[in-house]
Amino acid sequence: MPAAVSIIGASGALGFGLAVRFGTAGVAVTIGSRDADRAAQSAERARRAVPAGTFDGQSNAVAAAVNELVILSVPFRNQSEVLNNLRPALSAGQLLLDTTVPLAAAVGGKATRMLGVWQGSAAEQAQEMVPDGVRVVSGLHTVSAASLADLDHRLDEDVLICGDDREDKRRVAELIDRIDGLRCVDVGRLEIARIAESLTGLMISINARHRTRAGIRISGLPRPAERP
Amino acid sequence: MPAAVSIIGASGALGFGLAVRFGTAGVAVTIGSRDADRAAQSAERARRAVPAGTFDGQSNAVAAAVNELVILSVPFRNQSEVLNNLRPALSAGQLLLDTTVPLAAAVGGKATRMLGVWQGSAAEQAQEMVPDGVRVVSGLHTVSAASLADLDHRLDEDVLICGDDREDKRRVAELIDRIDGLRCVDVGRLEIARIAESLTGLMISINARHRTRAGIRISGLPRPAERP
Repeated sequence: MPAAVSIIGASGALGFGLAVRFGTAGVAVTIGSRDADRAAQSAERARRAVPAGTFDGQSNAVAAAVNELVILSVPFRNQSEVLNNLRPALSAGQLLLDTTVPLAAAVGGKATRMLGVWQGSAAEQAQEMVPDGVRVVSGLHTVSAASLADLDHRLDEDVLICGDDREDKRRVAELIDRIDGLRCVDVGRLEIARIAESLTGLMISINARHRTRAGIRISGLPRPAERP
Repeated sequence: MPAAVSIIGASGALGFGLAVRFGTAGVAVTIGSRDADRAAQSAERARRAVPAGTFDGQSNAVAAAVNELVILSVPFRNQSEVLNNLRPALSAGQLLLDTTVPLAAAVGGKATRMLGVWQGSAAEQAQEMVPDGVRVVSGLHTVSAASLADLDHRLDEDVLICGDDREDKRRVAELIDRIDGLRCVDVGRLEIARIAESLTGLMISINARHRTRAGIRISGLPRPAERP
């Protein structure tokens, strides 16, 4: 049961939002950034937001190595480069939770449109790029970064995760379920990331139209308290 | 405000489920089928399920012509052929609510995988094929046919609809909102159907994994009663 997590790209909106929520939930967070100074600044900012939290700022390489569970939260534009650089730092047995979304915005297109990724999805691209024995789970595509960062906002939504190994997904769910108001739902194999990632485009479209920060709930599932 | 609707393909699971729910909601339903006799049988079956409902069985061509609002509920495999045949029956000013989903199952693939449609989505293919002046709204991809047909099941989920005209979407929403427990959410322009249609694959994956009939709820929106 990991009580610690590394977040690569925690200077970004989603990564920082996750950092402060995990900090609030008592999970020790190692914030990774390309620049170690910048990581230290983000950790300091997180400490100001959550004085009781445990935050550490490190270079991406150090952050990727120190925890079993590593969250990748970078723009699609940077995903390949970051994963290339992380390859020497990651080792077999680690779990990468990829949150990357191939929005057309990465190449100047609309944020509601998707790019076609040869491997099928950003997550499958990640799985292809990580060292042997590192496994990828995909998730967190529908959770608003702004809602996460706004600690006064009461979260009440589901986190869809997919991956090829049930035990991996259980470990990721155990971590994310620590955040108050989030419930993980296993939505299938890693290839389902093609659909799950596109939900970011859907949420952006809904948010623009309804001026809100929407989330997703899957109905028809047992309530969290009743889950095994 | 349409109190009547035609459903092309109401012998199928989704179409029949919609028919009995609309019948329950006091909406007169014209059931269309390639074969008028089969349509009459489906109407009879709907009447047995909802004795107070108004159901009429007609050939697709008649069904498509008699109501302003026409729901297309056929397998992707048949969508092109049906739309070709309907072309003489449809006329400018009508609204087609397309529910078609290009699942890979149409060509013997998995029901959780999508086919690439040259136009982008089944709905955009429909828009290309209907006569000038007929407008397409896309929706109902996440609602379980079995849950609709099971009148003892209390629905409690959202229906995502997209289209290029707000007034069209308002008209569709007005109809669908008559069904108890469903709430329409405008999720954007017709091109968003590429994402919305793929949610059927997602729901099938969730249902297989969790042995349920899942639905979707968008959080962060005003509750139905508070909507304008």
